[in-house]
Amino acid sequence: MNKDKSAVVGIIMGSKSDLPVMQDAVDILKKLDIPFEVSIVSAHRTPERMVDYAKSAAHRGLKVIIAGAGGAAHLPGMVASITHLPVIGVPVKSSNSIDGWDSVLSILQMPNGIPVATVALNAAKNAGILAAQILGTSSSPIAERILAYKLELKEAVERNAEEVENTEF
Amino acid sequence: MNKDKSAVVGIIMGSKSDLPVMQDAVDILKKLDIPFEVSIVSAHRTPERMVDYAKSAAHRGLKVIIAGAGGAAHLPGMVASITHLPVIGVPVKSSNSIDGWDSVLSILQMPNGIPVATVALNAAKNAGILAAQILGTSSSPIAERILAYKLELKEAVERNAEEVENTEF
Amino acid sequence: MNKDKSAVVGIIMGSKSDLPVMQDAVDILKKLDIPFEVSIVSAHRTPERMVDYAKSAAHRGLKVIIAGAGGAAHLPGMVASITHLPVIGVPVKSSNSIDGWDSVLSILQMPNGIPVATVALNAAKNAGILAAQILGTSSSPIAERILAYKLELKEAVERNAEEVENTEF
Amino acid sequence: MNKDKSAVVGIIMGSKSDLPVMQDAVDILKKLDIPFEVSIVSAHRTPERMVDYAKSAAHRGLKVIIAGAGGAAHLPGMVASITHLPVIGVPVKSSNSIDGWDSVLSILQMPNGIPVATVALNAAKNAGILAAQILGTSSSPIAERILAYKLELKEAVERNAEEVENTEF
Amino acid sequence: MNKDKSAVVGIIMGSKSDLPVMQDAVDILKKLDIPFEVSIVSAHRTPERMVDYAKSAAHRGLKVIIAGAGGAAHLPGMVASITHLPVIGVPVKSSNSIDGWDSVLSILQMPNGIPVATVALNAAKNAGILAAQILGTSSSPIAERILAYKLELKEAVERNAEEVENTEF
Amino acid sequence: MNKDKSAVVGIIMGSKSDLPVMQDAVDILKKLDIPFEVSIVSAHRTPERMVDYAKSAAHRGLKVIIAGAGGAAHLPGMVASITHLPVIGVPVKSSNSIDGWDSVLSILQMPNGIPVATVALNAAKNAGILAAQILGTSSSPIAERILAYKLELKEAVERNAEEVENTEF
Amino acid sequence: MNKDKSAVVGIIMGSKSDLPVMQDAVDILKKLDIPFEVSIVSAHRTPERMVDYAKSAAHRGLKVIIAGAGGAAHLPGMVASITHLPVIGVPVKSSNSIDGWDSVLSILQMPNGIPVATVALNAAKNAGILAAQILGTSSSPIAERILAYKLELKEAVERNAEEVENTEF
Amino acid sequence: MNKDKSAVVGIIMGSKSDLPVMQDAVDILKKLDIPFEVSIVSAHRTPERMVDYAKSAAHRGLKVIIAGAGGAAHLPGMVASITHLPVIGVPVKSSNSIDGWDSVLSILQMPNGIPVATVALNAAKNAGILAAQILGTSSSPIAERILAYKLELKEAVERNAEEVENTEF
Repeated sequence: MNKDKSAVVGIIMGSKSDLPVMQDAVDILKKLDIPFEVSIVSAHRTPERMVDYAKSAAHRGLKVIIAGAGGAAHLPGMVASITHLPVIGVPVKSSNSIDGWDSVLSILQMPNGIPVATVALNAAKNAGILAAQILGTSSSPIAERILAYKLELKEAVERNAEEVENTEF
Repeated sequence: MNKDKSAVVGIIMGSKSDLPVMQDAVDILKKLDIPFEVSIVSAHRTPERMVDYAKSAAHRGLKVIIAGAGGAAHLPGMVASITHLPVIGVPVKSSNSIDGWDSVLSILQMPNGIPVATVALNAAKNAGILAAQILGTSSSPIAERILAYKLELKEAVERNAEEVENTEF
Repeated sequence: MNKDKSAVVGIIMGSKSDLPVMQDAVDILKKLDIPFEVSIVSAHRTPERMVDYAKSAAHRGLKVIIAGAGGAAHLPGMVASITHLPVIGVPVKSSNSIDGWDSVLSILQMPNGIPVATVALNAAKNAGILAAQILGTSSSPIAERILAYKLELKEAVERNAEEVENTEF
Repeated sequence: MNKDKSAVVGIIMGSKSDLPVMQDAVDILKKLDIPFEVSIVSAHRTPERMVDYAKSAAHRGLKVIIAGAGGAAHLPGMVASITHLPVIGVPVKSSNSIDGWDSVLSILQMPNGIPVATVALNAAKNAGILAAQILGTSSSPIAERILAYKLELKEAVERNAEEVENTEF
Repeated sequence: MNKDKSAVVGIIMGSKSDLPVMQDAVDILKKLDIPFEVSIVSAHRTPERMVDYAKSAAHRGLKVIIAGAGGAAHLPGMVASITHLPVIGVPVKSSNSIDGWDSVLSILQMPNGIPVATVALNAAKNAGILAAQILGTSSSPIAERILAYKLELKEAVERNAEEVENTEF
Repeated sequence: MNKDKSAVVGIIMGSKSDLPVMQDAVDILKKLDIPFEVSIVSAHRTPERMVDYAKSAAHRGLKVIIAGAGGAAHLPGMVASITHLPVIGVPVKSSNSIDGWDSVLSILQMPNGIPVATVALNAAKNAGILAAQILGTSSSPIAERILAYKLELKEAVERNAEEVENTEF
Repeated sequence: MNKDKSAVVGIIMGSKSDLPVMQDAVDILKKLDIPFEVSIVSAHRTPERMVDYAKSAAHRGLKVIIAGAGGAAHLPGMVASITHLPVIGVPVKSSNSIDGWDSVLSILQMPNGIPVATVALNAAKNAGILAAQILGTSSSPIAERILAYKLELKEAVERNAEEVENTEF
Repeated sequence: MNKDKSAVVGIIMGSKSDLPVMQDAVDILKKLDIPFEVSIVSAHRTPERMVDYAKSAAHRGLKVIIAGAGGAAHLPGMVASITHLPVIGVPVKSSNSIDGWDSVLSILQMPNGIPVATVALNAAKNAGILAAQILGTSSSPIAERILAYKLELKEAVERNAEEVENTEF
């Protein structure tokens, strides 16, 4: 069961159809060895469940919440309005979205007082990394793992670069 | 006091700074002789107040809710998620809005199941007229007043047309 | 035949090619047990038919009109200009639309005096629900059915949430 | 009075507030010595007047119609749906327009069968010139005046060029 | 050969890849029995050919030019700068276009003095109809054919409407 | 001097002209009693200074970096590429920006691996609050101050609501 | 007179009203001691003058052309179609532009074969610097001056940084 | 190996996934017989490699750099900030890009002092041609090859034109 008692990151999304996108957050948190939980919480279809989730998040031990949603995406902002934890918003390009602009603007353009840390369209992987960076501000081991991850990224580019440089064009 | 016991339309807005725009809804409802109430309810700063407002709306006798908000405008959609009353959303072009696109898309692009009846940017007057039209579906006197109002609009255009047609260009 | 004498909602669209999108309005109104009629009325190809439709709508017993159209979508606004009934506009993302922006803006940005209750791009289902909400302002049985429908939505999310929470990630 | 019996161009606009923009069409038609008439015709506030205007246009001797409107600008397209005359649409950037995009798309994106000859945002002057070009297809004197006007434009640029070339920078 | 000596409409396009879109202009002009010619003229790859084409157009008997182009679409505007004939611009949504916005804005937003009669994205059919309407200002037979065509459009909608109205939903 | 040895938040901006916007981050961090430093670091004019700043940030004791920039805003993303600390990006609507879209997209749309926590256009205040929320994940006193701040926001809305509810409309 | 025989950069613009923006190109070229000429060349009002200018540019000794224009900005692309010299395009935000998008897309989105080196909206200064960089590829003194200019930019930021760092916030 | 010692154009891209787009720059430079090198340099994953590449470019003999990147595309601008060579930016429409707008604006909207010569979305071919044009300002043989290439483009259009003109429509 993913309801890990030790979870420090909560990953929620407005609809099960967002899971293929949000899976990237799951994968990178596993890779970075950070305990998390995953659930579906719809701001519009289960507003009370959303309030309960956000209100109880800190008490249940969560430190960061990652919330993904598409269209008129209210979940990240509404959760941020209730909890004092940092909330990372992932705009999801859903089927009837207007090219993703609705998700991006609904999450990004929060009013003064209630920020949502917004990442790129569909960028659940970056949401996971950002959650780790936040936790890394008070955990040297996590900070070390992020540094190692950044090194991997660098080395992958270097390998690709070497391959391209040795290609006969 | 505007907390009229007989109020059938609730006008709410996310911030007092939205009042100059939302005043147009007040004015047209007064003109159409429809009892209303006005308040400030912020989805992001007073989420519990918003839940209470939306939950109690029908019991207090409201039939329609007009909700105005700017930026990542979650108020209309969140109220619509809680009440079964029709909710009319007014996108407000607030100071740091990206030309109003954020307000429009945050209100309009609601997911399946939870509609918001969206009107044009800053069009609080049309929100008031739409509320009246909704009430007019079961009230002949209100329907009559809308018809009379439409006649006024027509006559004003005709007067302007006559004036322009008699202008020497 | 769909020309139900008891129809209280009229569903019209500018072209037969809009029917796959507008079918969602039909389906939800059937589910909510609200009598409706369906037809094709083109503002641009049959302007007189449109005028006749809009003028006769209230007399024929309609209470709400749902109008879907794509591109330079004038049908909802033109019908709203003629009838005093509430008109719900569904922007349809047709084949040569510029990503749906044209439909959305042509329907949403109505001038003062003539509102169209606009729903999201292709959101005919929400148009149907909104029509029901409007009728529910004067009909307890319809209001009850909307409440029941909202409960269904909530329970579907809760089932999905439970499933996800029990997934081994 | 501008109701010139010999008018071959009809200039209409949705609201008197469009007149400062549409005046440019008046001015250029006067300069090109083409008889015109000017009026206010609102698609949304005076739909019957619009139908009458469009239906009678050809019989009254008009050859081209210039229609300006802002926001959800339906006037040019609706007039084009009724008359077989060429209709030139002028998108007007009105006060609550979303930067003019609504006017542009509502006029430009007409469906197959019913074109509107759209000019640039607020470009009533170009609408007047285009009307003259259309009339010039069957009138040598008008064609000559357009050629003379194009020569003026050219000479004005040449004078400016000479001045700039003689400026000490 | 399409270089019809009696051609009164010239259809040009910036690239052969625009032909599938521009074919609609060909088809409707044939249907309306209006003589035309078709060619490729690139503003950017054959600027001199473009100047020659535009300069000679009126002398060769053309009355209207239809120009289609994609991306930074300069062909319609440049032809309009050289000839005094009315030029109809068709924005083409080409492969690397930014959703067609580049073509639309490059053709529509012409400066004062040099209008292009712009039609909707990819709407070559409407360009053909508009050309016919322009010719119809001085030709009763052409005007009659447009009226007949509009009647066809109307009847097609009516047939579809009847079919839909008789559908069991 | 603002080079506070105990600074845990670094506020940087691409140009001194961004200071009026970024001042809001300063003010809220002071209010929340969080030590910070402020400087100008231009990705484009002082790339080496930027590299030095980002490389040394963690060693100098910073926990979070707030970076504001306008136009093609590369500062937040480039700093994020070098440090493993969380970087909060503030899109600034500078004078020649295209309505802020360039700043927003340049900061938000970071590639996989290198997130920037983006806040709304010009929302430096929210950047400061988000920094506090991040620090609050490991500091109860800071978390308490955020809770107190959220209470203030709520009470301010409630006071406004009461005032509006007692207004005679 | 600015018709400097030794001019290696030609600065042209579509209208005299573009001069306040294009002056920045003049100023930076003077500062970098690069001989230039300035003129008005309108693609749409003086197409022949434009052809002559572009055709003769290389023979007259120009090495780079800077062309600024607004709206449907065809000047840079048309000049590039005629000359083999590199053409730098400056999108100008003119009065009836749709927020500059038309100028940007009309200049940037050139078809394969005919590039225009586009700079930011109104960025005539950057056009001048880019021209210098191009000339610097074969002139060490010019390259030196660019390096010196970049050093100035850096030092100005450093001075601002020092000032801000010494401000008491 | 593509690390040609005589390379005068450096082609770099942020990710190997950009290679299919950037290949067009390779192909046209080969056709125009201009020595080049190709590599992967990521601003965000290998910032030090990017600094090294940009710093050493001129010393290694490069005269022009072509940099392609997608999303929040910082590579072209950052390289331009470090080198005094002209940098040509190619916005790449990558998979999670918002229709390419992010890439275009991140590359185009550079601040004063640091230009990037931006070409159209995905237009790596034009980047190659522009590089050749820049080199052609000091090399007659390259200028000749560009002229020959432009002639080819012209002749290809003429062949297509002839074919279309001889088609029976």
